[in-house]
Amino acid sequence: MFYHQKQLQYFTPPERPDPIYAKKLQELLGGSLGEMTVMMQYLFQGWNCRGPAKYKDMLLDIGTEEIGHVEILATMIAYLLDKAPLKMQEEGVKDPVVGAVMGGTNPRDVITAAMNPQHATVSGGGALPADSTGFPWNGRFIVASGNLLADFRSNLHAESQGLLQAVRLYEMTDDRGVRDQLSFNIARDTMHQNQWLAAIEELESEGLETTVVPSVAYQYGKREFAYQFWNQSEGEESGQGRWAKGPTKDGRGEFEYVANPQPLGPEPELPQPDPRLHDTGKISQAGQVGEAASKVVDKVVDVIDRVTPGGHQ
Amino acid sequence: MFYHQKQLQYFTPPERPDPIYAKKLQELLGGSLGEMTVMMQYLFQGWNCRGPAKYKDMLLDIGTEEIGHVEILATMIAYLLDKAPLKMQEEGVKDPVVGAVMGGTNPRDVITAAMNPQHATVSGGGALPADSTGFPWNGRFIVASGNLLADFRSNLHAESQGLLQAVRLYEMTDDRGVRDQLSFNIARDTMHQNQWLAAIEELESEGLETTVVPSVAYQYGKREFAYQFWNQSEGEESGQGRWAKGPTKDGRGEFEYVANPQPLGPEPELPQPDPRLHDTGKISQAGQVGEAASKVVDKVVDVIDRVTPGGHQ
Amino acid sequence: MFYHQKQLQYFTPPERPDPIYAKKLQELLGGSLGEMTVMMQYLFQGWNCRGPAKYKDMLLDIGTEEIGHVEILATMIAYLLDKAPLKMQEEGVKDPVVGAVMGGTNPRDVITAAMNPQHATVSGGGALPADSTGFPWNGRFIVASGNLLADFRSNLHAESQGLLQAVRLYEMTDDRGVRDQLSFNIARDTMHQNQWLAAIEELESEGLETTVVPSVAYQYGKREFAYQFWNQSEGEESGQGRWAKGPTKDGRGEFEYVANPQPLGPEPELPQPDPRLHDTGKISQAGQVGEAASKVVDKVVDVIDRVTPGGHQ
Amino acid sequence: MFYHQKQLQYFTPPERPDPIYAKKLQELLGGSLGEMTVMMQYLFQGWNCRGPAKYKDMLLDIGTEEIGHVEILATMIAYLLDKAPLKMQEEGVKDPVVGAVMGGTNPRDVITAAMNPQHATVSGGGALPADSTGFPWNGRFIVASGNLLADFRSNLHAESQGLLQAVRLYEMTDDRGVRDQLSFNIARDTMHQNQWLAAIEELESEGLETTVVPSVAYQYGKREFAYQFWNQSEGEESGQGRWAKGPTKDGRGEFEYVANPQPLGPEPELPQPDPRLHDTGKISQAGQVGEAASKVVDKVVDVIDRVTPGGHQ
Amino acid sequence: MFYHQKQLQYFTPPERPDPIYAKKLQELLGGSLGEMTVMMQYLFQGWNCRGPAKYKDMLLDIGTEEIGHVEILATMIAYLLDKAPLKMQEEGVKDPVVGAVMGGTNPRDVITAAMNPQHATVSGGGALPADSTGFPWNGRFIVASGNLLADFRSNLHAESQGLLQAVRLYEMTDDRGVRDQLSFNIARDTMHQNQWLAAIEELESEGLETTVVPSVAYQYGKREFAYQFWNQSEGEESGQGRWAKGPTKDGRGEFEYVANPQPLGPEPELPQPDPRLHDTGKISQAGQVGEAASKVVDKVVDVIDRVTPGGHQ
Amino acid sequence: MFYHQKQLQYFTPPERPDPIYAKKLQELLGGSLGEMTVMMQYLFQGWNCRGPAKYKDMLLDIGTEEIGHVEILATMIAYLLDKAPLKMQEEGVKDPVVGAVMGGTNPRDVITAAMNPQHATVSGGGALPADSTGFPWNGRFIVASGNLLADFRSNLHAESQGLLQAVRLYEMTDDRGVRDQLSFNIARDTMHQNQWLAAIEELESEGLETTVVPSVAYQYGKREFAYQFWNQSEGEESGQGRWAKGPTKDGRGEFEYVANPQPLGPEPELPQPDPRLHDTGKISQAGQVGEAASKVVDKVVDVIDRVTPGGHQ
Repeated sequence: MFYHQKQLQYFTPPERPDPIYAKKLQELLGGSLGEMTVMMQYLFQGWNCRGPAKYKDMLLDIGTEEIGHVEILATMIAYLLDKAPLKMQEEGVKDPVVGAVMGGTNPRDVITAAMNPQHATVSGGGALPADSTGFPWNGRFIVASGNLLADFRSNLHAESQGLLQAVRLYEMTDDRGVRDQLSFNIARDTMHQNQWLAAIEELESEGLETTVVPSVAYQYGKREFAYQFWNQSEGEESGQGRWAKGPTKDGRGEFEYVANPQPLGPEPELPQPDPRLHDTGKISQAGQVGEAASKVVDKVVDVIDRVTPGGHQ
Repeated sequence: MFYHQKQLQYFTPPERPDPIYAKKLQELLGGSLGEMTVMMQYLFQGWNCRGPAKYKDMLLDIGTEEIGHVEILATMIAYLLDKAPLKMQEEGVKDPVVGAVMGGTNPRDVITAAMNPQHATVSGGGALPADSTGFPWNGRFIVASGNLLADFRSNLHAESQGLLQAVRLYEMTDDRGVRDQLSFNIARDTMHQNQWLAAIEELESEGLETTVVPSVAYQYGKREFAYQFWNQSEGEESGQGRWAKGPTKDGRGEFEYVANPQPLGPEPELPQPDPRLHDTGKISQAGQVGEAASKVVDKVVDVIDRVTPGGHQ
Repeated sequence: MFYHQKQLQYFTPPERPDPIYAKKLQELLGGSLGEMTVMMQYLFQGWNCRGPAKYKDMLLDIGTEEIGHVEILATMIAYLLDKAPLKMQEEGVKDPVVGAVMGGTNPRDVITAAMNPQHATVSGGGALPADSTGFPWNGRFIVASGNLLADFRSNLHAESQGLLQAVRLYEMTDDRGVRDQLSFNIARDTMHQNQWLAAIEELESEGLETTVVPSVAYQYGKREFAYQFWNQSEGEESGQGRWAKGPTKDGRGEFEYVANPQPLGPEPELPQPDPRLHDTGKISQAGQVGEAASKVVDKVVDVIDRVTPGGHQ
Repeated sequence: MFYHQKQLQYFTPPERPDPIYAKKLQELLGGSLGEMTVMMQYLFQGWNCRGPAKYKDMLLDIGTEEIGHVEILATMIAYLLDKAPLKMQEEGVKDPVVGAVMGGTNPRDVITAAMNPQHATVSGGGALPADSTGFPWNGRFIVASGNLLADFRSNLHAESQGLLQAVRLYEMTDDRGVRDQLSFNIARDTMHQNQWLAAIEELESEGLETTVVPSVAYQYGKREFAYQFWNQSEGEESGQGRWAKGPTKDGRGEFEYVANPQPLGPEPELPQPDPRLHDTGKISQAGQVGEAASKVVDKVVDVIDRVTPGGHQ
Repeated sequence: MFYHQKQLQYFTPPERPDPIYAKKLQELLGGSLGEMTVMMQYLFQGWNCRGPAKYKDMLLDIGTEEIGHVEILATMIAYLLDKAPLKMQEEGVKDPVVGAVMGGTNPRDVITAAMNPQHATVSGGGALPADSTGFPWNGRFIVASGNLLADFRSNLHAESQGLLQAVRLYEMTDDRGVRDQLSFNIARDTMHQNQWLAAIEELESEGLETTVVPSVAYQYGKREFAYQFWNQSEGEESGQGRWAKGPTKDGRGEFEYVANPQPLGPEPELPQPDPRLHDTGKISQAGQVGEAASKVVDKVVDVIDRVTPGGHQ
Repeated sequence: MFYHQKQLQYFTPPERPDPIYAKKLQELLGGSLGEMTVMMQYLFQGWNCRGPAKYKDMLLDIGTEEIGHVEILATMIAYLLDKAPLKMQEEGVKDPVVGAVMGGTNPRDVITAAMNPQHATVSGGGALPADSTGFPWNGRFIVASGNLLADFRSNLHAESQGLLQAVRLYEMTDDRGVRDQLSFNIARDTMHQNQWLAAIEELESEGLETTVVPSVAYQYGKREFAYQFWNQSEGEESGQGRWAKGPTKDGRGEFEYVANPQPLGPEPELPQPDPRLHDTGKISQAGQVGEAASKVVDKVVDVIDRVTPGGHQ
């Protein structure tokens, strides 16, 4: 169960409204790697967790903190949308001919033309659960697999991309209020990258998971292909990297560089289609059209059915 | 530019058709963490890469290999769909009353009822660019940020989840052909987890990126919040983890456990709305309805516009 | 800011696992009118609220309660997925010919075939942020417009559909644990329907909004069409309803039944297309193909540009 | 079956083209609460209706009218896109250095940069089945549940949000043609709000449904929780509303304000995972890696299967 | 404007309910190539049409007919869902251990498990605007470009795929009612394929469009690449087709088979990244971390700005 | 299996960066009819192909070529995004009042405001797998049915729309580099329209398919409706087209113009609803509320179940 505290975790209002920046900032709120994603990802991982209590508790701690981050960004966006202009300048367009090709002449027109229209028509000056192009947040953005190592790597990835985006947005404004707020978010994401790196270390040090996840892969996988780098692109620059030579990161093998990879499988030839699907097969079906011919098809199917135990239905 | 080689990279056909398993196997082909995702993710990262040549070449090597993995799975699914039953048993349902509540009585009926209907009606027995629930693959599944460390962490995450899913699907069949094929895929994913771990090491060892990505976060972020763990969920089990004590993973600080976190921000109070948006504000607009009242609104807006340089349009 | 309390708001575990029911129950969790929707809808309405404090506080109260409902359903689904079968019966399919058309013969096969495959491969036995067909929850499911009357009507609608679905799911199981849990949810939805009806009454009684929302519609709309029912479908049964006669619900007019509605507008004829878009217009462009002809087009565009102030770019 | 009449229900062309406004107006056409939504919602409700004839007829009347509203908006948008500029001003960018950072200097450039690009490249100057951000209309936007009270509340909500958006768009233009057209739409939405309020009254007065829908909720729900308001957010401003005191709107109880809500459920602890899913459980699986260890897992599964009737497959 | 006629264009009810078939039949209603698609595609093409009147009228004729086809399928699906079972057999699962792995033993259980759950919980036994996997219809499914030849080819494609699916569904049932209904739909699709072929002929014979659309492609395209077939896949079987030899279909050239295609472009090397985006470039940024180093970056940016007219903002 | 060649198939870099044009060009890369669509469409058709080898090989040839086209466009977009401005001009907005409504005054501001924000924040100056509105590419964009004639018509449609869009984008720029590149793409699309027309001819000439696809439609469809044009829209302009008179294109009939089409079906009346779904039926359920009444419902259901063999579950 959850409780809400009215004060925000941290908040500095913007110095001035900026609807264009509000549009861009939606990426951190509702983008595929924004705060709604980490909030939902950590909460679902916590709710689905079957591991030791400290992991489950930690996931719910940070998931709960992230609800508050969504709250902060929603509030920031509402401030940035204050006094957003609604329509383009009409003075310059009184003349009908000019008007036909005219959009506006002042900075407000740029804003009106380029802001997310839904920030006015749909949300009435509030935040939206969407990214910076207006695309809605969706549940396929999150990962909660039940395997904590796989999931912590997902979390590290999400925090790395999220911090990168926060830094880029920091560079994209000079508003001291916004920058102060983002300084807080950037610090928390810094913590969270450290946190997931530490959590990964913990899982491995406690023997709950191994470098390659899940560890049963060693048992099921064909070992001869488990450490080869296949050079599928012309040139061998890729042979210069750590991934192409030396011991593998799991300490169980040596990287092998396959410079001229050759196919190991056959040329596939799919079975001929069920006549009832009307796929194009190797021989003509078109000649079979007409009452008579189609009865032949029916008979063929019947025969196949009769010779097939459990046969065609 | 790309070339195609007719033979598959590796292929073992299934021992027998299994349309239900074909439905499930679509997850590895078109799921959010399946082969289409890694194929597109590595290709876009490669095409967008502005880093050293060995990284770009390596990304295009593995991206090109993954096109071949999509090919393998598409071929496997077509084989698994061969001879899929099309309709439910009609013998048992001749009696109209029974028929009204009757679905079928034999194993073929289970298949017909539960397989992905589009595997018959839409693809005619072929693979679909969709996941195991029929949801289509989409471009928001991939990450290509231009920052290689952030992206390699995304790649490590994708290969970890993908391998986990491949192993689960391995457990879900006894078909020796399918299992042999998955043994190859599992081995390649094992390699790819090792590969991304090695590539991360390489990036850091060459000084191109640091533990926290992007490194400018240290400059922009508020250091006082950069190493704190906030305990937002009742109970302190989360204090037992490595993420709550000891040196941080970037070697720049000490984890700090904040057991009773308090808000640092104010209670937000949004500005009153633009009257032209018809949000509900703190005072009634309803009394203003009607010709007279609405003229008052117009005048107020006019006045605001006049006293505001550049004012309300 | 938010806090988490480890105990659930209410919880009764199911008597037994039931993966098929878990699939169906996802509708209440991640469906377009499920708990994720009301949770996000109330939180965004609260965060975007510019109205009196009691409304904002109330919205955040109920939004916070709904996070806990998502938590309850996620937990219930994880229990229902416990011991879900992973693969179909292989004994019956040893014979290769039988196997070709065979799916399974026992109840476990039905479950394995028909459950949401992602409940095994993707979430490892946990809940998904998706509906009962596997379609992910998305941000377009919610409404937060800034106008409280419009939004409270959205809330009433969401709680009405949600309760209807909860009741249907109650009828679809005999598991006493699940039914006990749903009895709690049904009671809360009963409250919430009452709550939004009361909140609508409050808004109107305080003069913040009127029956028709937004009230400025009376000023902008053409009154002659504001109370007419147009009979666009053959037959006049629709004339028998309350919506076709008597005083309108806003107390400002009388419903009027237009039995034989006639169009009031012209037959539209769109302007001819810009030649650079290559739409099909009323005269042939095909004759203009070739070097010579296309230069004619260029010249025509030039001329149009020159006679048009600000002209074609 | 449907018939088309060439004249529009109502139409006033715009005074002048305005591609930016065309982009915004798409919200009323293809937005989640636009005309495509109400058209499809009323038609599906009508087609699925099993209630008295007057309701079914009324739903098909208004659904059919709404097809005509989609037609009107599509026509309006095509007019607004006439003579839309296609490319940015090149005169100012002849100098290569300037050009590198240059976008354009006149109002036409603002339009070209900010209009929906698909209005030129994809639709060739025509309307799109999408909202104002370019997001396509989709079937999850509509509600047709079979329960008329629940559905009429959905309809009231859709008309309320739709009218609010129409009014906002009315404020966002000075084009007298567009405003005249919107005056018609606003009037029809005014009617439709009245209509659904009247239809709700009718359903209840005829005893087909009761205040809380569906009425069986009283039978299934736990009465003790059916009238409580839970104060989940700090502060008790929410206690001042009508929803927290006095008789409930269904006349069956009294609202009760729970100022300090406490959880009623247990702390959940999920069952340990199936070893074949490779979730992280409370004890290490990593130690079990290798041929020998994994055989142990197999045996454990076998034993569990044997002691479980119907057991693990 | 549109009118509705209560009688259906054609209708034969099913002999008996069949919820599994209802799920599959949704493909024809709400699939990407189903009736909702052709309905919307033809209506939008008609509304956006700027060509001769007979084309616009024809598009609106067939678009209007297709609304009636959606109506027919919605009605058929509601009949097929009548008496759909709601829950699985409980008799066999009284024993808790058996129950844990038990799903059901009779045909009704198969139906309950495999039908689209939303057909019960969401639509209450009615049709959904979705395809056979439950994925919602959306606006990106349709094409309306303004160019009639391009659009008529889209229409021919849609009718070809739609008829193919209708035939497959015809084969998937023995219900005489359903088959009779589909015989009507199949005939109409037969007409519509003929219709679009005829309309394409008409457009070309009237000189409104030429074989290659749009005809200006001849002017803009590099002629040397306009008739070459590039053999990008090993083996030369593709050289045996009509597309690799003989006169081209537009009568303007000869097909040329390029057996060993070679790249004509350079190896791309992207410009080094803007330092403010924190992409990984060819040289280390990591060394620049810290107050001092980052000031250097700032200065570099300043210098670049100063030497760039209009410079970095 | 696939191989990558570092050189591009063809490439001319742009003369200068243009982030607005980069946004628009995304339509050709990730739009519903862009290069990702044809790439995936041809590859899936090739992988699923069960027809003669020359068709399969040809599909994989062109699918492989299209991967290279995606590569070209991704590279072009990265060049166009070089030096994209990141933030709006701050000089003009020092004054807080002006700042409140100020957006920017120079051309760079237009770019910053109107470019796709994700081109900076998400991709760091690289291409995205999305269209020109930012909507992601998805798998429902492609068609691969197994029937080659139906699929080749889909391919012809895709190449026609794609070429139309390429031509429009050609008109929308004066950059000589971009135009040169598009001249190559336009030529290839010219080839591909010719190619699919030739491939259609080949299929028919070899008797693999007939004009109407699939040919079995003649057997299943009601011949009396297979050649009628129904005039569903007022006016008879549509009677003037080739589709309304003369021999049908399949040579099997004569087009017939039905000027006053009448419905052939009945007025539908759906069966009354299952009481457990709580749909609104023709008689009141509301009177049945309460312990007693609901027991009556239960009994009725029981009775129905008992008299129904296999009965209600």
